[in-house]
Amino acid sequence: MQNALDKIFYPKSIAVIGASSRAGALSYELVSNLIRYDFKGKIFPVNPKSDYVHSIKSYHSVTDIDDSVDLAVIMLPRELVLKTIDECAAKKIQSVVVITAGFKETGKEGADTEKKLVEKIKKYGMRLVGPNCMGIINTNPEVNLNCTFVKGTPINGGIGFVSQSGALGAAVLKTVQQNDIGLAQFVSIGNKADISGNVILQYWWHNDDVKVITVYLESFGNPRMFMELTREITRTKPVIVIKSARTSAGMKAASSHTGALAGSDAVVDAFLEQSGVIRVNSIDDMFDIANGFDKTNLPEGNRVGILTNAGGPAILAVDECANNNLQLPELSPSTQEKLRAIAPAEASVFNPVDILPPADSLMYAKAAKLMLADKNIDSLIVILGPPLMLDTLEIAKSICDAVKGTAKSVMVVLMSQDVVIPMLKNAAPMHPPIFRFPENAARVIGKMYSYKKWRDRPEGNYITFDSKKDTVRRVLQKYSSRPGVYLEFDDVCKVLQSYGLPIVQTAEAKDTEGIIKAASRIKYPVVIKASGKKLIHKSDLGGVEVDIHTEAELIKASERIMENLRNANASESLEKFLIQPYVAGGVETILGITHDEKAGHMIMFGLGGIFVEIFKDVNFKLVPISDEEAMRMIRSIKSYQMLTGARGNKPVNLDYVKESLLRLSQLSEEFPAFKEIDLNPFVFFDDEEKCRILDARIRIN
Amino acid sequence: MQNALDKIFYPKSIAVIGASSRAGALSYELVSNLIRYDFKGKIFPVNPKSDYVHSIKSYHSVTDIDDSVDLAVIMLPRELVLKTIDECAAKKIQSVVVITAGFKETGKEGADTEKKLVEKIKKYGMRLVGPNCMGIINTNPEVNLNCTFVKGTPINGGIGFVSQSGALGAAVLKTVQQNDIGLAQFVSIGNKADISGNVILQYWWHNDDVKVITVYLESFGNPRMFMELTREITRTKPVIVIKSARTSAGMKAASSHTGALAGSDAVVDAFLEQSGVIRVNSIDDMFDIANGFDKTNLPEGNRVGILTNAGGPAILAVDECANNNLQLPELSPSTQEKLRAIAPAEASVFNPVDILPPADSLMYAKAAKLMLADKNIDSLIVILGPPLMLDTLEIAKSICDAVKGTAKSVMVVLMSQDVVIPMLKNAAPMHPPIFRFPENAARVIGKMYSYKKWRDRPEGNYITFDSKKDTVRRVLQKYSSRPGVYLEFDDVCKVLQSYGLPIVQTAEAKDTEGIIKAASRIKYPVVIKASGKKLIHKSDLGGVEVDIHTEAELIKASERIMENLRNANASESLEKFLIQPYVAGGVETILGITHDEKAGHMIMFGLGGIFVEIFKDVNFKLVPISDEEAMRMIRSIKSYQMLTGARGNKPVNLDYVKESLLRLSQLSEEFPAFKEIDLNPFVFFDDEEKCRILDARIRIN
Repeated sequence: MQNALDKIFYPKSIAVIGASSRAGALSYELVSNLIRYDFKGKIFPVNPKSDYVHSIKSYHSVTDIDDSVDLAVIMLPRELVLKTIDECAAKKIQSVVVITAGFKETGKEGADTEKKLVEKIKKYGMRLVGPNCMGIINTNPEVNLNCTFVKGTPINGGIGFVSQSGALGAAVLKTVQQNDIGLAQFVSIGNKADISGNVILQYWWHNDDVKVITVYLESFGNPRMFMELTREITRTKPVIVIKSARTSAGMKAASSHTGALAGSDAVVDAFLEQSGVIRVNSIDDMFDIANGFDKTNLPEGNRVGILTNAGGPAILAVDECANNNLQLPELSPSTQEKLRAIAPAEASVFNPVDILPPADSLMYAKAAKLMLADKNIDSLIVILGPPLMLDTLEIAKSICDAVKGTAKSVMVVLMSQDVVIPMLKNAAPMHPPIFRFPENAARVIGKMYSYKKWRDRPEGNYITFDSKKDTVRRVLQKYSSRPGVYLEFDDVCKVLQSYGLPIVQTAEAKDTEGIIKAASRIKYPVVIKASGKKLIHKSDLGGVEVDIHTEAELIKASERIMENLRNANASESLEKFLIQPYVAGGVETILGITHDEKAGHMIMFGLGGIFVEIFKDVNFKLVPISDEEAMRMIRSIKSYQMLTGARGNKPVNLDYVKESLLRLSQLSEEFPAFKEIDLNPFVFFDDEEKCRILDARIRIN
Repeated sequence: MQNALDKIFYPKSIAVIGASSRAGALSYELVSNLIRYDFKGKIFPVNPKSDYVHSIKSYHSVTDIDDSVDLAVIMLPRELVLKTIDECAAKKIQSVVVITAGFKETGKEGADTEKKLVEKIKKYGMRLVGPNCMGIINTNPEVNLNCTFVKGTPINGGIGFVSQSGALGAAVLKTVQQNDIGLAQFVSIGNKADISGNVILQYWWHNDDVKVITVYLESFGNPRMFMELTREITRTKPVIVIKSARTSAGMKAASSHTGALAGSDAVVDAFLEQSGVIRVNSIDDMFDIANGFDKTNLPEGNRVGILTNAGGPAILAVDECANNNLQLPELSPSTQEKLRAIAPAEASVFNPVDILPPADSLMYAKAAKLMLADKNIDSLIVILGPPLMLDTLEIAKSICDAVKGTAKSVMVVLMSQDVVIPMLKNAAPMHPPIFRFPENAARVIGKMYSYKKWRDRPEGNYITFDSKKDTVRRVLQKYSSRPGVYLEFDDVCKVLQSYGLPIVQTAEAKDTEGIIKAASRIKYPVVIKASGKKLIHKSDLGGVEVDIHTEAELIKASERIMENLRNANASESLEKFLIQPYVAGGVETILGITHDEKAGHMIMFGLGGIFVEIFKDVNFKLVPISDEEAMRMIRSIKSYQMLTGARGNKPVNLDYVKESLLRLSQLSEEFPAFKEIDLNPFVFFDDEEKCRILDARIRIN
């Protein structure tokens, strides 16, 4: 039994409501495309004024159709759409595509109509693609659905493409044809009034026709769901995403275009990375990579062999391999020997293997087979520089035939042979991905290998530590009437201690006598800090003194602090002093929790001081994180070496850094009311026992 | 009167020596190309066995030709080449292209023949392109020279392309045709036995047909000359370079391919940047950018307007503009008003201006003109998403006509209209550069604007400070018999002081008494360092103690140092102690001179410690540098903020950092015998008087 999504992508009958009998009209072109692409189901044009559209019997109303209708495509003027939905409901149609524009994208009036449209859809239990979209394609030969008004014929392949932009969709439909890129399904989701990118992703996840998913988005409706969904999908299918509106200028343009809410691009980067999505910035890149996934095997390892008839292009490929962490191993002696036996004397049989310009189809085929049989390589790039007096198509076909059936990954570069590329579809129906330039092939192998590593990564565990939730609940109660405030420092300490996070021992004092008593409990050297609800930036005000060795120094320090606060007109904010042990050495880090309006809570890790301030060397992930993810956060900061013993320091205890991140993640997960947590600095040493959070702030929702 | 290079690119007669009468042979194809491309001079095939080649009278020997010959193209087997050169000399031919392969690129025997070939050429005063090359093209309609054997017809334009790789050249000749990219001249320089890339650059510098120069190189013959030449050329013509073999893997591949010496890619980056060359990594990028320079004006500023019929592509363009430091200003109110008057009600008249999918050729033309007239923008990107029922070519032509004659820079994006692009050449002969995707257009404007800024940059002055050259000469004499050694520290001090570089005050001592005396001269707090010719890494051995406040501490420190050296088995290397004032605070930098085998002396600047060790945040330039270049070096480190007062520090005296770089540059320029100079750390403060070099090493050649 087909569900509503099946009826969109695999319909057995389509009503085109608003089908014009005037050649040149969009609706006429859509019907033409359905016919020309040889749709395997029935087509019912609906036109109140015509009996025939495009030589097909037409109906005056959808309710007149004397057969069942799987999918209704609505191309009527906006004011007729709502009424038509009622008629579709009467006809028991479950799935509709509204191509008509003029809804949310045009302002308030359109948005109101769109709202009513969605209400109707929900009421009738229908599913809706659009409005303001460009249609659907399914190249499965048992369906042959080209339900768009774009000129051109999509070719069959394994790529699913969902686009928020119709124009981009149309452009892509043209480019895939010219570049031998095979689509499985395409959907232009327009205003996403009902069916969003997430719904399509969910559908394609288990759809066998779609081998690799490509997405163009300008905004996320539900980023957390996108992240959770893609994290599952990428276990079996690669997902490649262009999320435009990256820059604030781009967001402004997108927002005036779609009315979408601007989000932070760093957050988007974080959760796409966390879910194994391949993010790219250009359409060319997206389809280069998708084509690789569609047409060849995942490389088992990072060792690449290159076969060429020209040195220059091979060097470009080698450079790009190196830039993508791929290796170019030597071929085994026996492969070298066999290559030597078939290649001309001047040929190079190392790697790259250069069989020189006169190489013909037979030579290419033999050499490619020998290289693929070599245990030293996981992938093969075959470069065909424009052959001199030989037929490119013949050589290309011979290469494609030679590599058929290999379990390794193979890329073919037909240097600038733009004319030959589309011919291969017929000459060698099952061929590896073809690229125009060697750089692209190398880059794609790099991306495919990264994906392979992602898929094979240890899953990681979501560890739960013992915690004192009751204590935290009691703290929260205290603030229940004060949303948005920072917790008092002793409450901060209680919360952190409840989750085993090592906030430094702290004693409070109100006067000189108290200060001395507090310090004696803590052991010199100590630190003294001014404290008060309004003293958020106490260091900047001169409210902190460190490395105090004696009572006398301590008293002087407290006097200096009071004077500094007086000078800064902040005396009144001083409520008390905090005395803490002075912690010297170690590596200062920042651990934190921030909250994104749409994506939710994110955990942050980076090194303190200049690393975060100047180099912006921080790392975000959505909460909760697994132990593996925590470790990846730690390893992927640029200043990672600072943790592993740079400059003659002892390495810090990385396991304890990881544990601290996991404890913080758990705290955030269990108490989302904490909207902002800042452990800064959190000083790590090699000895876990010495690690301390020296200052911390927590803000509640 | 034509020189030898003119006779290569603008020959009035060509002898093709070794022209086969067999269709399919390379030499036959070359003659065919000459004829088909309608060469405006005379063609003399030379073939000892045929009287006619390709229906043209052929000569048995070049000396038989009864007319003058400007250019000889030699396509004979290698063993006949030398003899043929003699015959060409007898015929008084000055310019030859040797297409024949089998020379240096094939090993010793070939290299020997190549050496003999060059000797002959020099002896006869000839100029030679090749051997092992693919030929010459000049699309100037008064020349119409396609002297290659590659299929296809180059189209006329302003791009000069010189390629070290024949295959890449051939590939490019195909790609330019399909992408409407106009070549002026092309030369495949092969083994560069005589005419190198530098010679071609020099020739194109003052050639009016070549508006923009593109270069593919795998190795530099003379990088310093390349740098000096391109620094001049880029004042008037952009130069775009692919230098492959960037990575060590790529260098290995290139070296086995061409026998070229591997150089450091950081050095290449440095001198290309210093000479205003645009470096790219892919062929697509190179010709995208070259096409921009060829077909539209340089943008006067960084303000871009975007005109589109679809939101998605415009957002991609906006993102890419922002990534390339381009602005998207609001259009002036009057432009907005005028646009509003012509555009549909739902159109957006801000920037991007979205005139929606039904926009026709008239609407595009009007809107483009209005936008170009707006004072708020310097460049215009016109995006044409696949129009629905309208003719792309007609709209494209109308856009091209509308923008004709503007002084602003204009890019047209025909989304995926690959088929339409080559048609524009006829439909609108003078049209702006056309791109398939909006990202590319934005990127190209970015590059063009960077070039414009480069061209308009202050030239800078090469400042000479007073120096005591005699002192330095005396130091050098002392070491004349010991090449490769490090100078003794007191000699280092003499050299630096001679050029006004503030090496810290240093006293020497051999025993406790001397140490105390030395410290008393210097004023506490002091630093004590072990010194000795063999003590290169004294800090690592525990040979340095800092921040010493009293005599007692000083004595203890010297004892600790001696013990550390004993423990490290380095006691014997200790020759003396150095006592210096302790300098606290400031910003630690590294200034230095290194020497590259081929490029010569380079000056280095970066921040000390983790900045150089972990972030590799250093900057190189070839010596000498101007004051502007020194300032650019300082500003372009990532940690620049550390110099301008990050973390509450006072900014350092940047003028004095610049002066120090210039003094070091002058020292290196005047005494190239110093192969390596290391001022590390060089501590800078806001007060010039406080800045000090705390340690320094100098090595002589």
